[in-house]
Amino acid sequence: MDTLAGEEPLEIRVGHGAGKPPLTVTMRTPGDDIDLALGFLFGEGLITSAEDVVTAQLCSGSDEANTYNVVEVALAPHVSPPDVDPTRNFYATSSCGICGKASIDAVRTTSRYDLRADQTTVDAATLATLPPKLRGAQAAFERTGGVHAAGLFTTAGELVCLREDIGRHNAVDKVVGWALRAGRLPLTGQVLLVSGRASFELAQKASMAGVPVLAAVSAPSTLAVDLAEEVGLTLVGFLRDATMNVYANAARVDR
Amino acid sequence: MDTLAGEEPLEIRVGHGAGKPPLTVTMRTPGDDIDLALGFLFGEGLITSAEDVVTAQLCSGSDEANTYNVVEVALAPHVSPPDVDPTRNFYATSSCGICGKASIDAVRTTSRYDLRADQTTVDAATLATLPPKLRGAQAAFERTGGVHAAGLFTTAGELVCLREDIGRHNAVDKVVGWALRAGRLPLTGQVLLVSGRASFELAQKASMAGVPVLAAVSAPSTLAVDLAEEVGLTLVGFLRDATMNVYANAARVDR
Repeated sequence: MDTLAGEEPLEIRVGHGAGKPPLTVTMRTPGDDIDLALGFLFGEGLITSAEDVVTAQLCSGSDEANTYNVVEVALAPHVSPPDVDPTRNFYATSSCGICGKASIDAVRTTSRYDLRADQTTVDAATLATLPPKLRGAQAAFERTGGVHAAGLFTTAGELVCLREDIGRHNAVDKVVGWALRAGRLPLTGQVLLVSGRASFELAQKASMAGVPVLAAVSAPSTLAVDLAEEVGLTLVGFLRDATMNVYANAARVDR
Repeated sequence: MDTLAGEEPLEIRVGHGAGKPPLTVTMRTPGDDIDLALGFLFGEGLITSAEDVVTAQLCSGSDEANTYNVVEVALAPHVSPPDVDPTRNFYATSSCGICGKASIDAVRTTSRYDLRADQTTVDAATLATLPPKLRGAQAAFERTGGVHAAGLFTTAGELVCLREDIGRHNAVDKVVGWALRAGRLPLTGQVLLVSGRASFELAQKASMAGVPVLAAVSAPSTLAVDLAEEVGLTLVGFLRDATMNVYANAARVDR
């Protein structure tokens, strides 16, 4: 017997009033779906606080059997609905949420927070303790070997929030959505650790959420490093076995 | 000094005549971009052969600086342009190409090929030799540690085509696009090996391309197994160190 990681499509519908149009479908591991939807919308710059949302719920009242695979988000009256112009498509998948615009020019969203103003520092020795803590706290990975994790930590190395998903971008969205609902944004003075690689999308999500340090167990991409340098994000890669590479804004890491 | 995996957005424009609208943006490692675009379109069911495409080229003649980040595909007159109705958005990202429709009902594309008719068998001992061959042939991974690979093999274990990308779905699209251009589709009697996990999307791409055996170095998802069972795809996971799990249609694997 082998336990597999769950994977189901989640449709996110967003708008005002009845008949909200579908915005995107993401392949995700079921659980924390409201947080996933809100974190995704926040990362895309569509909402900026919990007050921008009136209700967010798994769909009911439809004739569909699997209503747990649809989240409907009712925006507050002051919030503009997403632009679903076909030339500005939104995409979200099991491992990518950024690609919200069908245009290279628009591929970058702009954070509300200035990471350069965040004077946080963290000890390299503390960073080195985070991957085993993340792995130790992961419930699903031990069973399935197939899910990614995103963990929010204090600079003292305490785990604040852990979320798992078959897609690492979804795991980050779940953390950010949780923080949004808890009134904890921006994530000033904290460290976000991801179990896989650090892509551009993850650097963007970190920047959007105001987290000053993004650490990854595996490699970053060129564009992730470019973005980190541009926005003032500290980017740590290959964080494993007490070693790490710091690719951008290394001043925040104390040796 | 550390060499990073390249990551750049690629916009895919598709249509007839001048002013083709953008269909999607994918974050990819530059290289084999035409194959990536054609493989993506094939996987989405938008084109079915090389004859469906008049030209596919990196954009030129525009005022944009980075024209190597745009591929423009001119469809043959008999091919319908993609539906860019906002309720049927297309998404493609560094690790997901399937999510072509903003509707759960439409999340599955239908293959033109009946995998059940493919009587291919492959020795388990041969399968076990494939991951080291893939790794050995990977150029970028050795340098960066950050890219995925997709390799097409014969059942005798010979490597037919290897492609690398920061996103494993892109790597598969590049293989399929290469096969499309070479007139090699369907990929009957062959084995597709991917370096990471086997998600629903990868199972779908394998099914669309008519490859009877999909093997992954890491875990499959529940939905990947469901799809494999449904379409007659042999799905092998955790293929490493001479061991493997066969999750669907095990009759094709000879012990």
